[in-house]
Amino acid sequence: MQIFSYEHLYSFSHKIFTSIGCDSADATIASNVLLSADLRGIDSHGIARLVGYVRLWETKRINSNPNFKITHQTPSTAVVDADEALGLVAAPFAMQIAIDKARNVGTGWVCVNNSNHFGIAGYHAMMALENDMIGIAMTNASALVAPTFGKEKMLGTNPIAVAIPAGVQPPFVADFATTTAANGKLEILQRKNQDTPLGWVQDVDGNASTNANILKQDGALLPLGSDREHSSHKGYALGSIVDIFTGVLSGASFGPWAPPFPAYIPMPENMPGKGLGHFFGAMRIDAFQEANQFKNQMDKWIGRFRNTTPINPENKVLIPGDPEREMEFERKENGIPLVDAVVKDLKDLAVKFNVEF
Amino acid sequence: MQIFSYEHLYSFSHKIFTSIGCDSADATIASNVLLSADLRGIDSHGIARLVGYVRLWETKRINSNPNFKITHQTPSTAVVDADEALGLVAAPFAMQIAIDKARNVGTGWVCVNNSNHFGIAGYHAMMALENDMIGIAMTNASALVAPTFGKEKMLGTNPIAVAIPAGVQPPFVADFATTTAANGKLEILQRKNQDTPLGWVQDVDGNASTNANILKQDGALLPLGSDREHSSHKGYALGSIVDIFTGVLSGASFGPWAPPFPAYIPMPENMPGKGLGHFFGAMRIDAFQEANQFKNQMDKWIGRFRNTTPINPENKVLIPGDPEREMEFERKENGIPLVDAVVKDLKDLAVKFNVEF
Repeated sequence: MQIFSYEHLYSFSHKIFTSIGCDSADATIASNVLLSADLRGIDSHGIARLVGYVRLWETKRINSNPNFKITHQTPSTAVVDADEALGLVAAPFAMQIAIDKARNVGTGWVCVNNSNHFGIAGYHAMMALENDMIGIAMTNASALVAPTFGKEKMLGTNPIAVAIPAGVQPPFVADFATTTAANGKLEILQRKNQDTPLGWVQDVDGNASTNANILKQDGALLPLGSDREHSSHKGYALGSIVDIFTGVLSGASFGPWAPPFPAYIPMPENMPGKGLGHFFGAMRIDAFQEANQFKNQMDKWIGRFRNTTPINPENKVLIPGDPEREMEFERKENGIPLVDAVVKDLKDLAVKFNVEF
Repeated sequence: MQIFSYEHLYSFSHKIFTSIGCDSADATIASNVLLSADLRGIDSHGIARLVGYVRLWETKRINSNPNFKITHQTPSTAVVDADEALGLVAAPFAMQIAIDKARNVGTGWVCVNNSNHFGIAGYHAMMALENDMIGIAMTNASALVAPTFGKEKMLGTNPIAVAIPAGVQPPFVADFATTTAANGKLEILQRKNQDTPLGWVQDVDGNASTNANILKQDGALLPLGSDREHSSHKGYALGSIVDIFTGVLSGASFGPWAPPFPAYIPMPENMPGKGLGHFFGAMRIDAFQEANQFKNQMDKWIGRFRNTTPINPENKVLIPGDPEREMEFERKENGIPLVDAVVKDLKDLAVKFNVEF
């Protein structure tokens, strides 16, 4: 484990995105999104993925010089063909359209097809906050999740992020995979050589498993709820809604045909749509009520929930976004720790593109 | 257990709603919504609740002759003050506004405050289907659910329904409480004198419990995910999003201040808003892509998911909405079974209002 400053990693990320052909503005946006994951403690979606994006570019699955096209729109909606761009760049572009439409008609809803992995959903949803809007972001992803009663991997971890402004309180920011455990949680256990709790994964035959490496042996992640008795059908429904909004409605590929992130996995055959898909929403607060009045009420909501009587006085009830915000504060101050495998990847990238790390 | 025809129960429900002062049109809408729950097998939200609505009317918490007011709007949004109406009537009124707005600008989003329990969320979301739109419905409800790490009841079971049209396949209709188990599941176990599985409820101190009567002893339902290790914080976040969209954004009451359904429970003090709140959305499919093309893709999605390799060949993977649709078919054909306690309630209502049961 080594610790690096935000500025150091940001500057390196910018150089690498420039090296694969991004213009400076796109490299800035992509680095902002990527590094926001490291700051917020979602290490699986941060600079650890830089080498993965580069590999997708090398196999020509990512176009570093895309031409975004709005292919369909109404006053409150739009569909964007991302031209195989980095999702890190396509997503803020689309979210900005949602925000602009919300400014005009109250809300804006934008689907993206022909895209790639977009980093953390929360970044895009949070773009709404400074506009006094509620932001929503979703994406589909390569299939790792078995539906209730199934043993095939049919859905991605398909996250949902919702960001809601408050007044003196920090904003409410939920950002979660629609599975019991995100894939990043398995990666942490793999490095520590530890088992998962029961209810996170199943093996190739659909039996309960605690093997953190089971996905490499044709096992699957489980939908939020874990098993039928604990309502995994609800997590399966949620992941499906995300897949349909981001994949089917956008014209992207979907379900088991979603394009894989690892470049060494071949693209699915007979894909029903183009690339990965995203869905963004922006709702102007004052399309519903005066913004300051709403923010005062959100302060009341947040204050009351934070003061829920805790089971254990040392483990207080949190508001969605609390842990990530604290982590961001801490890492801006003290730097971002990277495990050795990630540091090695970055050093290899530095050699490959002849830039300094 | 006795079995009654749909028509018989519908006609009785209509008479009772008329008896408490609803005009015939409202009694029709309320009965449609109420009986759709019985048909779809969500017995806890059907005619079993009729006596509960009557009691709320008797304590003057329900206004059977409401004057709905749109208090705020933009081209894609509206807020409705439901004037203490039956939610069964206010919800279809608001959903229709969402549909009309979607027709004009692509999508429509309508919040309702000053309302009451609105029956099953799925009914309202499904109103979008015949308009080639995606429908969304949510409501908050009286607090029964403890947030992760908390022992106080802070959230309702806060359901989310999403209805998505398909082509030759039946539509995708998800409708679920954001808890591991809905309250109706506990009621079934109470009648059978059985325990719950671990992970559905906790006791007054926040300890794991299997007591189906624990809510009467100051216990709480658990958010979807059950415990922190299985990501109950995601269920808590989902339930919170529903509470904020339906309660805070609408100007209704929210969190632990949501009005209780049982009329014998006093209203919370210092309520921060008016009554119960709902949130509805309608998205016109062709605001994103040609409707028939989308429906063909939905057929492909549904067909592929239905054919997921099952763990057990006798337990196939279902599409959200499958069980309810099969139940509706069965009960339209063979009638609706009611447990004795419900039949007694209905007979008492018949005597009270001097109508035939």
